[in-house]
Amino acid sequence: MTLRSRFGKEMDDLAKGYTVSVPFDQRLYKQDIAGSIAHVRMLAKQGIISDKDAELIVMGLISIGEEIEQGRFEFKEELEDIHMNIEARLIEKIGDAGAKLHTARSRNDQVATDTRLFTKEAIAETVTRIKALQQVVLNQAEGNKSVVIPGYTHLQRAQPVLFAHHLLAYFEMFQRDVERFQQCFERADVLPLGSGALAGVPYPIDRDFVAKELGFSRVSANSLDAVSDRDFVIEYQAAASLTMMHLSRLAEEIVLWSTAEFGFIEIDDAFATGSSIMPQKKNADVAELARAKTGRVYGHLMAILTTMKALPLSYNRDLQEDKEGLFDSVDTILSTLEVFAAMMASVRVKAARFRQAAEESYTLATDIADYLVRKGIPLREAHAIVGRLVRYATETAKTLYDLDLGEYKRFCPGFENDVKSITVESSLAARSALGGTAPEQVEKALAAARRTLHGT
Amino acid sequence: MTLRSRFGKEMDDLAKGYTVSVPFDQRLYKQDIAGSIAHVRMLAKQGIISDKDAELIVMGLISIGEEIEQGRFEFKEELEDIHMNIEARLIEKIGDAGAKLHTARSRNDQVATDTRLFTKEAIAETVTRIKALQQVVLNQAEGNKSVVIPGYTHLQRAQPVLFAHHLLAYFEMFQRDVERFQQCFERADVLPLGSGALAGVPYPIDRDFVAKELGFSRVSANSLDAVSDRDFVIEYQAAASLTMMHLSRLAEEIVLWSTAEFGFIEIDDAFATGSSIMPQKKNADVAELARAKTGRVYGHLMAILTTMKALPLSYNRDLQEDKEGLFDSVDTILSTLEVFAAMMASVRVKAARFRQAAEESYTLATDIADYLVRKGIPLREAHAIVGRLVRYATETAKTLYDLDLGEYKRFCPGFENDVKSITVESSLAARSALGGTAPEQVEKALAAARRTLHGT
Amino acid sequence: MTLRSRFGKEMDDLAKGYTVSVPFDQRLYKQDIAGSIAHVRMLAKQGIISDKDAELIVMGLISIGEEIEQGRFEFKEELEDIHMNIEARLIEKIGDAGAKLHTARSRNDQVATDTRLFTKEAIAETVTRIKALQQVVLNQAEGNKSVVIPGYTHLQRAQPVLFAHHLLAYFEMFQRDVERFQQCFERADVLPLGSGALAGVPYPIDRDFVAKELGFSRVSANSLDAVSDRDFVIEYQAAASLTMMHLSRLAEEIVLWSTAEFGFIEIDDAFATGSSIMPQKKNADVAELARAKTGRVYGHLMAILTTMKALPLSYNRDLQEDKEGLFDSVDTILSTLEVFAAMMASVRVKAARFRQAAEESYTLATDIADYLVRKGIPLREAHAIVGRLVRYATETAKTLYDLDLGEYKRFCPGFENDVKSITVESSLAARSALGGTAPEQVEKALAAARRTLHGT
Amino acid sequence: MTLRSRFGKEMDDLAKGYTVSVPFDQRLYKQDIAGSIAHVRMLAKQGIISDKDAELIVMGLISIGEEIEQGRFEFKEELEDIHMNIEARLIEKIGDAGAKLHTARSRNDQVATDTRLFTKEAIAETVTRIKALQQVVLNQAEGNKSVVIPGYTHLQRAQPVLFAHHLLAYFEMFQRDVERFQQCFERADVLPLGSGALAGVPYPIDRDFVAKELGFSRVSANSLDAVSDRDFVIEYQAAASLTMMHLSRLAEEIVLWSTAEFGFIEIDDAFATGSSIMPQKKNADVAELARAKTGRVYGHLMAILTTMKALPLSYNRDLQEDKEGLFDSVDTILSTLEVFAAMMASVRVKAARFRQAAEESYTLATDIADYLVRKGIPLREAHAIVGRLVRYATETAKTLYDLDLGEYKRFCPGFENDVKSITVESSLAARSALGGTAPEQVEKALAAARRTLHGT
Repeated sequence: MTLRSRFGKEMDDLAKGYTVSVPFDQRLYKQDIAGSIAHVRMLAKQGIISDKDAELIVMGLISIGEEIEQGRFEFKEELEDIHMNIEARLIEKIGDAGAKLHTARSRNDQVATDTRLFTKEAIAETVTRIKALQQVVLNQAEGNKSVVIPGYTHLQRAQPVLFAHHLLAYFEMFQRDVERFQQCFERADVLPLGSGALAGVPYPIDRDFVAKELGFSRVSANSLDAVSDRDFVIEYQAAASLTMMHLSRLAEEIVLWSTAEFGFIEIDDAFATGSSIMPQKKNADVAELARAKTGRVYGHLMAILTTMKALPLSYNRDLQEDKEGLFDSVDTILSTLEVFAAMMASVRVKAARFRQAAEESYTLATDIADYLVRKGIPLREAHAIVGRLVRYATETAKTLYDLDLGEYKRFCPGFENDVKSITVESSLAARSALGGTAPEQVEKALAAARRTLHGT
Repeated sequence: MTLRSRFGKEMDDLAKGYTVSVPFDQRLYKQDIAGSIAHVRMLAKQGIISDKDAELIVMGLISIGEEIEQGRFEFKEELEDIHMNIEARLIEKIGDAGAKLHTARSRNDQVATDTRLFTKEAIAETVTRIKALQQVVLNQAEGNKSVVIPGYTHLQRAQPVLFAHHLLAYFEMFQRDVERFQQCFERADVLPLGSGALAGVPYPIDRDFVAKELGFSRVSANSLDAVSDRDFVIEYQAAASLTMMHLSRLAEEIVLWSTAEFGFIEIDDAFATGSSIMPQKKNADVAELARAKTGRVYGHLMAILTTMKALPLSYNRDLQEDKEGLFDSVDTILSTLEVFAAMMASVRVKAARFRQAAEESYTLATDIADYLVRKGIPLREAHAIVGRLVRYATETAKTLYDLDLGEYKRFCPGFENDVKSITVESSLAARSALGGTAPEQVEKALAAARRTLHGT
Repeated sequence: MTLRSRFGKEMDDLAKGYTVSVPFDQRLYKQDIAGSIAHVRMLAKQGIISDKDAELIVMGLISIGEEIEQGRFEFKEELEDIHMNIEARLIEKIGDAGAKLHTARSRNDQVATDTRLFTKEAIAETVTRIKALQQVVLNQAEGNKSVVIPGYTHLQRAQPVLFAHHLLAYFEMFQRDVERFQQCFERADVLPLGSGALAGVPYPIDRDFVAKELGFSRVSANSLDAVSDRDFVIEYQAAASLTMMHLSRLAEEIVLWSTAEFGFIEIDDAFATGSSIMPQKKNADVAELARAKTGRVYGHLMAILTTMKALPLSYNRDLQEDKEGLFDSVDTILSTLEVFAAMMASVRVKAARFRQAAEESYTLATDIADYLVRKGIPLREAHAIVGRLVRYATETAKTLYDLDLGEYKRFCPGFENDVKSITVESSLAARSALGGTAPEQVEKALAAARRTLHGT
Repeated sequence: MTLRSRFGKEMDDLAKGYTVSVPFDQRLYKQDIAGSIAHVRMLAKQGIISDKDAELIVMGLISIGEEIEQGRFEFKEELEDIHMNIEARLIEKIGDAGAKLHTARSRNDQVATDTRLFTKEAIAETVTRIKALQQVVLNQAEGNKSVVIPGYTHLQRAQPVLFAHHLLAYFEMFQRDVERFQQCFERADVLPLGSGALAGVPYPIDRDFVAKELGFSRVSANSLDAVSDRDFVIEYQAAASLTMMHLSRLAEEIVLWSTAEFGFIEIDDAFATGSSIMPQKKNADVAELARAKTGRVYGHLMAILTTMKALPLSYNRDLQEDKEGLFDSVDTILSTLEVFAAMMASVRVKAARFRQAAEESYTLATDIADYLVRKGIPLREAHAIVGRLVRYATETAKTLYDLDLGEYKRFCPGFENDVKSITVESSLAARSALGGTAPEQVEKALAAARRTLHGT
């Protein structure tokens, strides 16, 4: 089988080596075979090839699938890509009938179909793993429901919040990720087969039949677009970039909280690594690598965007560069989600240390200002008074608990004894509007999260 | 008004200059004022401030809005940002009551609200302009319904297609863009106000009321997430990157088709530029700039992704870097869409030249191979036969039309006189499955496109 | 003056607005005028225009420079760019002679010249500011020569190091930055003027004269390359990205060290910001913004790389997109370096806290393993022994200082009393090879750094 | 051999799979062994280990190198990385002595050394291949010295230039690439070994000896910097991005020139690909893929920049992500340069078609304007006159050759008969300043290029 009868010579070896894709696109063999089987059944149904030929082809393809599965298939680089490898082997196995498989299609619509099938599966698996991580996050939130931590802004202690509230922020991020992947799925869920090389095919094909066989919801509306569209790959990369970004934020917190300085959590030994030279080290390498791999996925996003820039219609060989980055991002995000879920599940929370930190560093200053507001002092003035109070406390190395009422009154006569009843608990409870960290709200949010995951 | 009563000294001038945001975030003044008005009405409704104070504040804010609108407002860099500029002016105008505006909110939830309002408006406008460009594309397709062009793969002439079919490929791309922006809108359409600095606010606020006032569909579910989430900005940048990528492909074709070599279209003089030194030049600078600006939007996407990487919760000043890139991408995409629509509307199609190109370069070779397939020759064999035929024709400098039947038969005895009835028209007509370039299909696609735009 | 005599109509307003560059390229007015003056002097010297015309033009240009400097110049968008704005004003001022200025040049070589002049100045200033920051880093290192800190790997305490040693790591990074910028300067330091639009100019010009006038070391060797080369912009962006990356690492450490948890340094109040709502907050916004702006510069690098991808020779309007990103990166890096230097100079080091951290967390475990190695135990075995020792200590909540010799010996009989003489000081002193943290080495490194900055 | 005696349990399998690097860092085995041999020789020389142990280790390492070379080495994922795999095998082979290899070093300085060795070799090979491509470009330039082509700006024909001049523009670009890689080499050429984990090592090592053994010019000056510096990887990626960008421009021209529309060159059949469905196709896939792979390299640059952003000192596991992108960029650029050189060497130039295009489209309009300037008409006026002339010619469908003197004079009385002596040849010859396209200049440029490559 050759595509080169038009040429006076064989392809240069360097050029062959440079253009060959079978080393990576062999990963699409299942999709390719499934696509071919659906295609050939349609060809027979439409009378374009005979039922007998179709049956032979289908049997041949199934058996090739098994050969590959079992590692008995020899991929040949001189056959360029997964499509030609399978087709050539088919002809080898079943003869002339095999040469009819490629009727009414082109590699251009074929590879687009394969890649969409792969992407749909990848999205489904990605969503499954995000949800599994959400479940772990939710479990940790529920298992540490009463743990109070210092909420941070600018990595400075700001106000007390519930640990569960903090974790649920990640639940929200991951939920947006799920939505994005699902919407990306919808746009990937379109069958390009039947678009031919670029213009459609001159056979009475039934595209809806093929779509149904392969589980696509729709068929593509424009052949030129269908063979040259890689939006779905870019969307996957963009959605994956956002998810990796969210994971990198959580990873950063895991790293920070595991330091000697923060000391808020302890990663299980099973997820910690040692040093080749420093016997005392316990490092959070999993979190560090997750953080680092964010770059890799961003890079793949940038790569495919660059590749697609300014390409004239329709198919150009440039599009072959869509796959390796996609495969790598899928592998990266799936393994990161999986290991993260396991690691997060193993994390031991040091509640006392968290609590202590939540009480230090004047984290109740806002509540004291709001106390003054409720006494009738305009917000801006209250803020300034408490600022001076904090400054005084800092300079005298006292906590707000240490100050006596006399000291308070020196900054504002409006202070009364009840200022002492401002505590971490009162601070939490006061933030009781929807989305706030009040225990009742967090309880509701936990219930909502459970419903999101389990639909009940 | 100072936020620095806690500090022993004023801010360093360099630090002030470095952290100030009012030079760019003043662009959010409308959103900021609208947000404040809704907030203050809620405060009054809930009895947190008095109706009288609320009324004063609202009137003050409206009048500040007018001052800005009319260029009479003096933005002060020492007041850092748009929020403090407006608040300070308010206090200046209405006194103590103004100092109550900031009750039960923080700049963290305030700026998130402003930015979401801005983004929602930007998306709406972006979608409007994409649709306007789709309309122009559709008009050109309908106005040139019978124009045949060479469809390309690898920028080599491949098969004849209708010009309308080619243009509709872009219609499809833009339609996906519209969908993406609309889904991004849904995730932007969430009110963060009421999240306070990070933990919620200790006042009996009514967030649903504020959401309704401001036209948000939902309120945010987690305060820590709400103040530190910039997913909606990243999504806008990603969607904009895809749209710019699509525009860059169309721009590339405009540039190519306008060359002396292709010569398929003529840009109107009103959209062409000359040279400072070469009097004969007619350049497609608009298309070139659109192509180039793709880089700019990609860059903003990469910038915000980088900025967000590995940020611990919740708000960090890093988030301030979300705005300039967003503003620039919005401006870039809106102006590009607008000028592109105008330029595309002005394009004059050289139908004869397109047609000639569609007939040259053996673009019917595939049809000849399919002709042989229908005579019972397996596809792969038919392909090889026609390959040899083309090689012969190339070497003898003939077109396929020039060859006589004897020459055809030399390559395959199956050729008969009816091979001569393969024409551009028969080629087009044969591709009649959904998505193909057959005139009937393109007609249907045009009707569908009209329905998409006009809902009828 | 018009470039449109070849066209039948004026440019569309949208197209004008889209292609106009004077709103940003007016920043190049000094370079443009300097370039024109040198050009015109050469034209006169070569007899291409008369001395009288040249004199008129030079005087006109100087006076236009003053108009711009003093804000009296009216930039007109309809004149597209800075070049045409100046040329039109020149003709307005001096009449016909002005129309000769553009002889023997094109905007293509003109703008390349302007941008190179700008870039050269930007590089020089960037290098100056990096050095100023290096000086501050060096001062802090020298001023805190005896401060011991815990060196970190994986953000876990690893081994004691001198604070000065830690700071000098940044000195090294910045020194590489200086080198890179200087080498970028060399490639920017090439005069393109004289390349015309693309092919050279048909006049007997003296390019070396112009180069000398403008301070260029060389003239470009190929006109097509000269008008379409933007490597120097990309190189600036790449070098700036590396510098911002280095700054982001230092910024991250400033943020970490300023937390309540680390508590190693105190930023001066003059460089700290407060909160609109939390009166106690002292935030390191300057460091956060520096960290965030890394994304911005990366984005500009990606933007120009994308823009340049796959552009055919020679000049294309796409190249106009080189400037805004360049300007913004220059502004960003210069302001960041400046404010960072000031902030770093103000940092107060909490030596005692650093010291305490350096002694905790088994940071001497490596030294104990090396102690065993010196007693003849293979490194790998020694590592395992000390690992078990640390595990025992952790589980019994002891420090290594707490353990008595009996406990040591339980893990390895080779331990003797002298194990107690392993201290932070002995650990530091032992790392005395070049590049190590031993005080003597750090002393040498400080001296070398001084020499690097001051050449003595 | 275990690094986990400090931990209570083995590593989780998911965590192991996630953190393992031996699947990719095994590529560094040669560098790792070379580094270890140099290290161990130094240890013996300094009396840190015995000569006998050193000899055993060296022999063991050499034999392990052979095992790997011959595919007999079993890489074990449970041993994490290439370093531990080799070390464990060494201990297996030679017993206790092997356990001394890691004395006075850490994996942190070891992997930095390996990666620098790899990068230095990669740079050397990259430079070699760039030069090979330069040679091919030069050969094509010399072999087509008299070929005239239309020079383009905005992809519109602008002025005639020599084909050799056009090719030499790429020679210039590649020469800058060579310079950049060489400067990157200098900064990679620094030995980190001896920096230990982060602080140096407590042994009397001789770093200069190791540097000399391994061919490094210098040793690193700061241990903290040395183990956490990946600037050299980023610089490689940045330099590679620029080179790929240059190749993408050339690739774009190859694609354009090979179209039916331009038809300026013919790629050899050995470098062309066919279609699975369109028998007539001859595609320039090699050039398309080269163009596309630009995205991949940009992506790797962005990935490593993102990964390094905001990492605190010193080593973090994030740094492990430096390698795969580096390997892939090296492979990409080397294979692209190699296949490009072969393909370019095979290109057949269609001189007549180039020439014809150079004469059409009013490419001499600039020369006519300059003709008027020499007759004393100010440049700007001359430009406008010729613009009107071109417009007249366009509207009457004439070339400038077709116009008679009467018609010329209608636009400017200054035209005389000698206007007819303006030809492509006169146009070329006139551009005779350095860098211009005049044949004499191009001859000089060719000679200079030869000197650059061959130093004579």
